[in-house]
Amino acid sequence: MTFSTTETLISPTNKLLSQHLFTRRSIIPNRNDVLWRIKRGIVRTLTWNEDGTSITLGYWGLGDIVGYPLSKVTPYQIECLTSVEATIIPPHLWHEDIKALLYHIQQAEELLSILHRKPTSLKLWQFLVWLGEKFGRDLEHGRLIDLNITHQDISEVLNTTRVTVTRLLQKFEEEGKILRHKRSIVLNLPTKFTRIEYKN
Amino acid sequence: MTFSTTETLISPTNKLLSQHLFTRRSIIPNRNDVLWRIKRGIVRTLTWNEDGTSITLGYWGLGDIVGYPLSKVTPYQIECLTSVEATIIPPHLWHEDIKALLYHIQQAEELLSILHRKPTSLKLWQFLVWLGEKFGRDLEHGRLIDLNITHQDISEVLNTTRVTVTRLLQKFEEEGKILRHKRSIVLNLPTKFTRIEYKN
Repeated sequence: MTFSTTETLISPTNKLLSQHLFTRRSIIPNRNDVLWRIKRGIVRTLTWNEDGTSITLGYWGLGDIVGYPLSKVTPYQIECLTSVEATIIPPHLWHEDIKALLYHIQQAEELLSILHRKPTSLKLWQFLVWLGEKFGRDLEHGRLIDLNITHQDISEVLNTTRVTVTRLLQKFEEEGKILRHKRSIVLNLPTKFTRIEYKN
Repeated sequence: MTFSTTETLISPTNKLLSQHLFTRRSIIPNRNDVLWRIKRGIVRTLTWNEDGTSITLGYWGLGDIVGYPLSKVTPYQIECLTSVEATIIPPHLWHEDIKALLYHIQQAEELLSILHRKPTSLKLWQFLVWLGEKFGRDLEHGRLIDLNITHQDISEVLNTTRVTVTRLLQKFEEEGKILRHKRSIVLNLPTKFTRIEYKN
């Protein structure tokens, strides 16, 4: 069983929602009639090629909705990249979550457009910027991406090889575009603070 | 102006819906607050790379919902591949269309997973099967795709070159996998009728 624990809580709208806790790298159970709302942590949705290669369909975090009803792709899996808290949204409440559904579509299309970028170095850079915007936080000298994401993970999003990701990240580091510490990446972008300074 | 004509009609639920007609290759106007429901014909949604290369985000037909609110991708365009009839869905009615929104997500993810297939010949074949399932019709000896789709159009979905698409389609024809007549393609698949026969 992948649940660490299950709690029942009262949502702000006074509906009883079942809160589930999952540990890192565990799989959120697939059910045909269930959407999950992420309350904390990060998951990826994925499928596989015939040869067993993982294909990442998306990265999702706070407020995002995931679940088999959003996908016709088989197999379909929701994997926790961090420890995760999620609540089940039963079908009769889906219509209350139009915004989250729209946001899901927007992100899927954004990722699709990043996948089309060429050369691969641009594709990787735009993916890192996207990750940074979605999951990162500003430091004094850039944007921190601290997802414990591996080069293999990145290659499975970008339809390239682990070796290429490793080589390009090394190149970015040599060029001063990124700093790395273990699996954390800091994008050498002007921070919001710096950007405001530029405006004045 | 891209509209051919505009009519007002009464929907089955007695709501006044504005019906718009568009000619082939015309652009459906983008508005931040408007979703379009396709009532007849086929459109593609697309964006561009920095170098001006088109990136196709999806192909959409009868019952599908498209529109800028579904995408954060800029630029964003809805292009008619055939003549098209579409109605505007105003924001206060979006929650009635959960099924169409889910279907939009499902298709986006399906296309994303096709994009990851390797080699390119498999990617192209799976895209043709997907097009056939969505837009085709059964003939005695296969599934007809009659979308007036060019090799360039296909290359813009699959993130490959027009030359590669042309070469692979030629190979498929030589191998007897497809038949071609002008821009129509017949996939040499067992038809539904034939498949039922196989089962017995």
